[in-house]
Amino acid sequence: MNIVDLIIKKRDGNELTNDEIKFFIDSAVNKSIPDYQISAMLMAIFLKGMSEEETAAITKEMVYSGDVLDLSSIPGIKVDKHSTGGIGDTTTLVLAPLVAACGLPVVKMSGRGLGFTGGTLDKMESIGLNIDIPMEKALEYVKKSGLVLMGQTANLAPADKILYALRDVTGTVESIPLIAASIMSKKIAAGTDAIVLDVKCGSGAFMQDFESAKALAKEMVAIGKNIGRKVVALITNMDEPLGLHIGNSLEAEEAIEILKGNIKGRLFDVSIELAANMLVLGEKAENLEQARKILIEKIENGEGYKKFLELVAQQSENFDGTIKISRAPVEYSVKAEKSGYIYSMVASQIGRASIETGAGRMTKDDEIDYTAGIIMKVRLGDYVNAGDEIAQIFSSSNDKCERAAKILSAAIEIKSERPQLKNLILDIIN
Amino acid sequence: MNIVDLIIKKRDGNELTNDEIKFFIDSAVNKSIPDYQISAMLMAIFLKGMSEEETAAITKEMVYSGDVLDLSSIPGIKVDKHSTGGIGDTTTLVLAPLVAACGLPVVKMSGRGLGFTGGTLDKMESIGLNIDIPMEKALEYVKKSGLVLMGQTANLAPADKILYALRDVTGTVESIPLIAASIMSKKIAAGTDAIVLDVKCGSGAFMQDFESAKALAKEMVAIGKNIGRKVVALITNMDEPLGLHIGNSLEAEEAIEILKGNIKGRLFDVSIELAANMLVLGEKAENLEQARKILIEKIENGEGYKKFLELVAQQSENFDGTIKISRAPVEYSVKAEKSGYIYSMVASQIGRASIETGAGRMTKDDEIDYTAGIIMKVRLGDYVNAGDEIAQIFSSSNDKCERAAKILSAAIEIKSERPQLKNLILDIIN
Repeated sequence: MNIVDLIIKKRDGNELTNDEIKFFIDSAVNKSIPDYQISAMLMAIFLKGMSEEETAAITKEMVYSGDVLDLSSIPGIKVDKHSTGGIGDTTTLVLAPLVAACGLPVVKMSGRGLGFTGGTLDKMESIGLNIDIPMEKALEYVKKSGLVLMGQTANLAPADKILYALRDVTGTVESIPLIAASIMSKKIAAGTDAIVLDVKCGSGAFMQDFESAKALAKEMVAIGKNIGRKVVALITNMDEPLGLHIGNSLEAEEAIEILKGNIKGRLFDVSIELAANMLVLGEKAENLEQARKILIEKIENGEGYKKFLELVAQQSENFDGTIKISRAPVEYSVKAEKSGYIYSMVASQIGRASIETGAGRMTKDDEIDYTAGIIMKVRLGDYVNAGDEIAQIFSSSNDKCERAAKILSAAIEIKSERPQLKNLILDIIN
Repeated sequence: MNIVDLIIKKRDGNELTNDEIKFFIDSAVNKSIPDYQISAMLMAIFLKGMSEEETAAITKEMVYSGDVLDLSSIPGIKVDKHSTGGIGDTTTLVLAPLVAACGLPVVKMSGRGLGFTGGTLDKMESIGLNIDIPMEKALEYVKKSGLVLMGQTANLAPADKILYALRDVTGTVESIPLIAASIMSKKIAAGTDAIVLDVKCGSGAFMQDFESAKALAKEMVAIGKNIGRKVVALITNMDEPLGLHIGNSLEAEEAIEILKGNIKGRLFDVSIELAANMLVLGEKAENLEQARKILIEKIENGEGYKKFLELVAQQSENFDGTIKISRAPVEYSVKAEKSGYIYSMVASQIGRASIETGAGRMTKDDEIDYTAGIIMKVRLGDYVNAGDEIAQIFSSSNDKCERAAKILSAAIEIKSERPQLKNLILDIIN
């Protein structure tokens, strides 16, 4: 088999066979083909697309390019959850304890924040949790407490790392089959039986329009079917931050308030919907309605928050029963410049503003300030008077607050007209 | 300027500005961008195309990536000729002495054969000519004799070499704007004022169908207009070898016979048409009809052949007045397997057969046998009886002859039906 023939085949819009895709991925991983041939293939894939069969095949090859975790020693169906990334998106910290409290085991490997989106690992570290857990220890934890949240330990889907690094520098990131294969390969390598996907859609998501989000969701569900994993994808609105808190310890704070039953809102709603789908896939509930009821019960009777405390105790040293939440010392109030309805938000720019506070990273090596961030005081459609507070900013200096405030203000449009609001759950694909 | 932004711009089908194209070519030449970004851009160009303005801009940048020859010390208009490559295509050896005999100066840099197509430099060396001529010497020659045929000396269009080497291994060769820019950049860097292009079309050409050949011809004429060079492109048929001789000294032999006025045929016809267009562009004739008349006169009065002898004397050591043509020692006769019309030829396979004799190269480093090759005894549309000789093969061994004969026979289709013959000159674009 010759890689140039395969590039030409894809360039001309033809379908690659499973063997040809295996050859491409194997050659990329063992470095028997140079990067310039990989990138030419990636651009051809970007522009000519891949069929469902090709996408499933490339996912499978990416899975088997590295370790595949064996979770068979944990009884029951293992259900994972993945979000395509958004702003104020703390669903993992809410739903992992809740579903574990319902008896569904959770072994979840999360990632760090990059660019305008946050990451669960940073939020965990912000309240003192250890995320660096060897696999053996993780299995021990989950057997005892029913859940473990951790960083990636094993060598999962190294082919994805190679392809992603090249896509990032060759203008081939936004390819739906390649995004789908990238996400699904890591989840499947992590040993899961079923997956609930949260495909974010809107001004604070990678998929800004509904059609792209739906195409990505369908692609991932199709991969699941093809590879024999149950997959449900929710398309959820990200035209504004999901929670009101943005920033690491601030988001942990909001998740805790939800688990304690003190607040509701969009983050609560999406967490419950995702968790309900997990319970149904994991056969802990017969249908979504029953699942929602069970989950809300677990908040009301305190078992969800108790499970969260168990997680904190399990993964932090010398936990004395009190979770330490800190907010950065300098506080800054952002005011509405005029009266009117909160008409639109460029949510990605609110993410950018949070980076200015110190809460996020532009590059992988940037250090972050766990205590920095933003608390939004308004939602789309709210009416404000000029001078009303629309957000609070927390950071280590006034300078940073001012830079963040400038970006934040510019990202929020106030109009005399009332905006047309979209549903929070835009669609469900299964 | 950021190369990833430019790749994305082209990937999305947008037009690059002149400055952006300059940045791409400059970065490729000075190696400030890696090969994997160049190849991603090349695939995006391949699949999304380039406008006439973009193609002219990339050509210009490729020209100025290296030396540009200054031929201003040679009086008059300098007209170059280029063929896209075919089988038995010896027009340069015929037309260069002819147009020089008409007073049009010829400074022609040629190339070597590769794959199924031959190259002028090999044909010259096969009869003892030196092609390695320093530029100063070349100018001296052309001032004295009116012509010089030589290999490329200066550092012409290095950007083309870089892009071509990558296109060759990333499935991006057959892009019409990139082919056009590659050809035109080298010709313009070689210092010419006007160019006659011979775009081959058919089973022995890179452009197998008329539409692609016409698109390439139009693209090159447009580049010429854009850059201020007069360009005429002839689209000529290559559904069978142009001359009857294929192989280096065999082709030199046929060119000499034409110059001596001993034979005519397709090679004669195309050589005269190309030469006539050169004379008109070079203002040595008022129109094509007059030009053809002058050229045929130069054959009939022996001045064309005299100029050829002058070229040989100029570029070979101790020339005694006799050109030494050798044919390889083993001769093999290929016979028609059945009676009927020569209905079709896969001319590229006849080129492949000539490689088997030793006359050609598969890779740049292969050695070739100057005396080997094929003499065709039939033309498309000829009627043959079973057992009639359809070709003679010359090589150093019977083995090689047999391998070549097998490929040759398979490439020639004999049918009871008479074929529909195409014109030799399919179109003229200017």
